[in-house]
Amino acid sequence: MNESVEELYQMVLQGDRRAISRLITMVEEDRPVAREALRLLFRRQERAHVIGLTGPPGSGKSTLVARLAEHYREAKKTVGIICVDPTSPFTGGALLGDRVRMQELFSDPGVFIRSMGTRGSLGGLAVATNDVISILDAAGKDYIIVETVGAGQLEIEIAKYAHTCVVVLMPGGGDDIQAIKAGILEIGDIFVVNKAEKEEASRTISDLQTMIETRPPTTRGGWRAPVVATVATEGKGISELSQGISKHLFYLKESGTLEEKNLWRMKTELVEVLNQRVERKVGVLLEETQAGRAILEKLMEREIDPHSAADEIEKLLLRNGGE
Amino acid sequence: MNESVEELYQMVLQGDRRAISRLITMVEEDRPVAREALRLLFRRQERAHVIGLTGPPGSGKSTLVARLAEHYREAKKTVGIICVDPTSPFTGGALLGDRVRMQELFSDPGVFIRSMGTRGSLGGLAVATNDVISILDAAGKDYIIVETVGAGQLEIEIAKYAHTCVVVLMPGGGDDIQAIKAGILEIGDIFVVNKAEKEEASRTISDLQTMIETRPPTTRGGWRAPVVATVATEGKGISELSQGISKHLFYLKESGTLEEKNLWRMKTELVEVLNQRVERKVGVLLEETQAGRAILEKLMEREIDPHSAADEIEKLLLRNGGE
Repeated sequence: MNESVEELYQMVLQGDRRAISRLITMVEEDRPVAREALRLLFRRQERAHVIGLTGPPGSGKSTLVARLAEHYREAKKTVGIICVDPTSPFTGGALLGDRVRMQELFSDPGVFIRSMGTRGSLGGLAVATNDVISILDAAGKDYIIVETVGAGQLEIEIAKYAHTCVVVLMPGGGDDIQAIKAGILEIGDIFVVNKAEKEEASRTISDLQTMIETRPPTTRGGWRAPVVATVATEGKGISELSQGISKHLFYLKESGTLEEKNLWRMKTELVEVLNQRVERKVGVLLEETQAGRAILEKLMEREIDPHSAADEIEKLLLRNGGE
Repeated sequence: MNESVEELYQMVLQGDRRAISRLITMVEEDRPVAREALRLLFRRQERAHVIGLTGPPGSGKSTLVARLAEHYREAKKTVGIICVDPTSPFTGGALLGDRVRMQELFSDPGVFIRSMGTRGSLGGLAVATNDVISILDAAGKDYIIVETVGAGQLEIEIAKYAHTCVVVLMPGGGDDIQAIKAGILEIGDIFVVNKAEKEEASRTISDLQTMIETRPPTTRGGWRAPVVATVATEGKGISELSQGISKHLFYLKESGTLEEKNLWRMKTELVEVLNQRVERKVGVLLEETQAGRAILEKLMEREIDPHSAADEIEKLLLRNGGE
């Protein structure tokens, strides 16, 4: 445990699983040594293809991720899997069910699996996820699959960190239409209708195709999102999905969108890192300084409203733009 | 449309529906006149009981909200309903299905219904929701019900703004256990098992009771969260739910927790207002100043990592604590 940052960094570069695990834990605990290691790792060129995978609960995401990872392993590629669950406050044991489904992958040295939950703020989870992507990238994984549980706005945000975003849906009645909300429809580079053995699947697929065609053309540039039918439990449709994912990466490179995406991702992470810091600073200000306590008191007495209180804190905390 | 802030404020105080609507739209558009009106409104003492209602899709939340509102109307109380849908980017028409269920309520002058989606950031939605609560409170509503769609972390965050948080679940197999994740279990002051006519309901209720009993005692102070069985479509269990809600408010007042909750809510809103501002400032800094563009360029060239870039921006943007 007492190795230097440099040693840890070298072991991560070599893909040492225990070193990767240890560094991720340090990132989650926001330890200074992790910051230092990330600084070193970040200098390396990005090379992994980051695939985001999201969709409503019950759509079979975990099984699909397991099958996709196996598919990549058969092609001798290495895979990192990050399971992000914003509704779970704990890291590790929370996703036991999913872990069972991924059992074989766990013992494969070419695969690294990690589940993450919120320890504190949501912004913190997004930042940590992005850091873990950087770590697995530096550790030489060819593909990094980020699975987010649920289909809330945060899941959508995290999915945006990916180069290719796969939205998984299942056949069904009115509920699936409810799930195909505008937000979800906008982020999908590839749509999967899993459990395609079900009767209603063909209708869901055609509904989905119609919805994709009516997306504003600006949403995804010149890319036309395919709809892939899969039966993950039987491994059906997995190679079609993998082909779609490869085609999308090719499109991103050819169209120059890849660079744009990377810029967006970095800006977003910057804002989130800063938000986290502001949150901490405001906490300290309100609880430990006289000026802060006075603002809070006026607020509680309803002498000022939250926006006016924010004005006062802003004066204490923020400089004016590029001052 | 050209009335003064003072006129608008007075009309809202009188409960004028069109004035309330107009002010909410102004809040969503972040117009300065809205800020001014909120400042005036905020000076009034809070009096509404704010009830948060959340749960997974398909649990029948909207029907339950409609029945609860009708119950309050029968007791001659006025009701405000805010439907928050973080997965929907639009305000208004998005919740058509729910609106049909609430049709009769729409024509009742004692009820005000508004649906809200994300226009930009998530933080923005939380801030706007809190502002709308203040508006409906000032407009004299006795009860304000905030329904959040889905059960992701953001829904949980928004539910925290409420005095009493109702978590709605439905009977079912493994899926409902998945939904009763730690986060959801922690925020519930009252649990509802809706669609209780189903066979599996009694098992879900007893599972839930066991889970509640094993919650750490610190979570909810001395309050023991009841589990209420309802069949919202038939109006069954609604008066039990309403009794539970009243008892919880009584508990909050007796135990002094109400004040604590209000303090927490105000601090949270402050942080969110400030986060929004930081986000804007960072955007301007990165895109419109030379120093900002230089940081972004170094980041894109991978000369520095996002955390180091944040350090540099922090130096430009933030003062040191209470400096």
